[in-house]
Amino acid sequence: MSLVVVGSMAFDAIETPFGKSDKIVGGAGTYIAWCASNFTPVKQISIVGGDFPQSELDALTARNVNLEGVQIKKNEKTFFWSGRYHMDMNTRDTLETQLNVLENFQPVVPDSYQDCEYLMLGNLVPAVQTSVITQLKTRPKLIVMDTMNFWMEIAMDDLKKTISMVDVLMVNDSEARQLSGDFSLVRAAGTIMKMGPKYLIIKKGEHGALLFHEDKVFFAPALPLEDVFDPTGAGDTFAGGFMGHIAKTNDISFENMKTAIIVGSAMASFCVEKFGTERIRAVDKTEIDARLAEFVQLVNFDISLV
Amino acid sequence: MSLVVVGSMAFDAIETPFGKSDKIVGGAGTYIAWCASNFTPVKQISIVGGDFPQSELDALTARNVNLEGVQIKKNEKTFFWSGRYHMDMNTRDTLETQLNVLENFQPVVPDSYQDCEYLMLGNLVPAVQTSVITQLKTRPKLIVMDTMNFWMEIAMDDLKKTISMVDVLMVNDSEARQLSGDFSLVRAAGTIMKMGPKYLIIKKGEHGALLFHEDKVFFAPALPLEDVFDPTGAGDTFAGGFMGHIAKTNDISFENMKTAIIVGSAMASFCVEKFGTERIRAVDKTEIDARLAEFVQLVNFDISLV
Repeated sequence: MSLVVVGSMAFDAIETPFGKSDKIVGGAGTYIAWCASNFTPVKQISIVGGDFPQSELDALTARNVNLEGVQIKKNEKTFFWSGRYHMDMNTRDTLETQLNVLENFQPVVPDSYQDCEYLMLGNLVPAVQTSVITQLKTRPKLIVMDTMNFWMEIAMDDLKKTISMVDVLMVNDSEARQLSGDFSLVRAAGTIMKMGPKYLIIKKGEHGALLFHEDKVFFAPALPLEDVFDPTGAGDTFAGGFMGHIAKTNDISFENMKTAIIVGSAMASFCVEKFGTERIRAVDKTEIDARLAEFVQLVNFDISLV
Repeated sequence: MSLVVVGSMAFDAIETPFGKSDKIVGGAGTYIAWCASNFTPVKQISIVGGDFPQSELDALTARNVNLEGVQIKKNEKTFFWSGRYHMDMNTRDTLETQLNVLENFQPVVPDSYQDCEYLMLGNLVPAVQTSVITQLKTRPKLIVMDTMNFWMEIAMDDLKKTISMVDVLMVNDSEARQLSGDFSLVRAAGTIMKMGPKYLIIKKGEHGALLFHEDKVFFAPALPLEDVFDPTGAGDTFAGGFMGHIAKTNDISFENMKTAIIVGSAMASFCVEKFGTERIRAVDKTEIDARLAEFVQLVNFDISLV
């Protein structure tokens, strides 16, 4: 059940209509690792600069996140992203991006990671994602890939190559439309699954997520929340919950993927309650179980009454 | 289990990015009656002009829709609305409105309707909705009200009075925000339920619907469709399915309201497949049962796997 996670570890500076963060720790790989480690040990592949706090690395190690695959470039700086969310909290402007160590990132898969059964490719340069897949001597049981519109704009060929190699693709609704060229999400799903992935997850933020496979579809709602404080990392946390549950249960059936999406949605609902990783690193099993029970109440109806 | 429906019967002319209709029969009351009559007999209250086709009235009568409460103004014209949908099919512009018979509509509740147990107030002038409530000598077991932003803009005081008299209010997400003055739908729900209704249904179009009651919330998805052909009447059809199921089962528990929302969502998913009432008047029990089974598949997951 060995889970390997690839993704950025970064600094973020976030502005929302409700507040502003200092430069805080973020990055897709960071969110995925914090989240997935609630369910299963994680073997992390990433890169940071000498400015990345040792205390952050130690905290992840203490959570059973193996950092052997994390390169530390002592004389370079960590990837930095700064953004501002609009009132709807679904759209945002990037204010600043400093690639820093990510600019020449060549991921190296340690020998001790070759037992990888589950591979989670967090949003990153498609060629880096591909490099990790090709370095693995045995193909994992399940490869899940997250990506974003940015790569569709500057590296579509590389992106399509990576997409053709994975089992599950995760994108949001506008990215699914962009990738397929079709406004209808149902038709978009059909087009994208022809590109390679047997499963497609379309994330719709506060409107939930859809899982497509062959002619089947499953829908998981987002938990209606009084306040969304900071959506940064919600998609990565969703991915971490999904893949953490799959790896923990060692079950890649469609039925179990449904449950995994509910777990991902529940974890994402914690993430947005505070700035950055603050909430997701503090959550415990009791809280997770209670939140999952809320999801059951949210969607469960008595079929016999129909 | 007597169900009384109040709502407009009208002519519509509809443009979508995919086509254009002639002047066709529409109106909230029409959609509700066609839909609810799949589940239970309907006693209709409305008003039409001499230009409204007798064949349409006969077709409703054949469906067990009692038209004693429908006034026919032989020398006047039926309400007419014309609109154009945008590409997203969630927003539309009104091109023309001719109030005609609706301008001076004074609803009269026939004596034979006084056994009303379930009252569905379709979107209409709030004062007309109130008039029907006050004409009923015995308060119905459940009063459900649909309304829209238009009345919030021109008749907010009347609207709030009607809202204070009903059990269940249905609005869409932007209307819930407008009515409550709160962007958060969870907080908006709390505010609106303090205005009177013990239950609030927030319709989110392709993103499904939320049912709020006290501190409980239930979510019903919309069925992901390849194409939405014409969204006109989808909200009214949803209301008809919801209230039709409640009246048929004679059960106003929260649990049964959950099922009723699934029924409403299933019926609305038919409505949008063709222009106007074409699809909803043709649907049969076998199709409805199959669609309900699709909804079960769409949201049902194995709790034991969590």
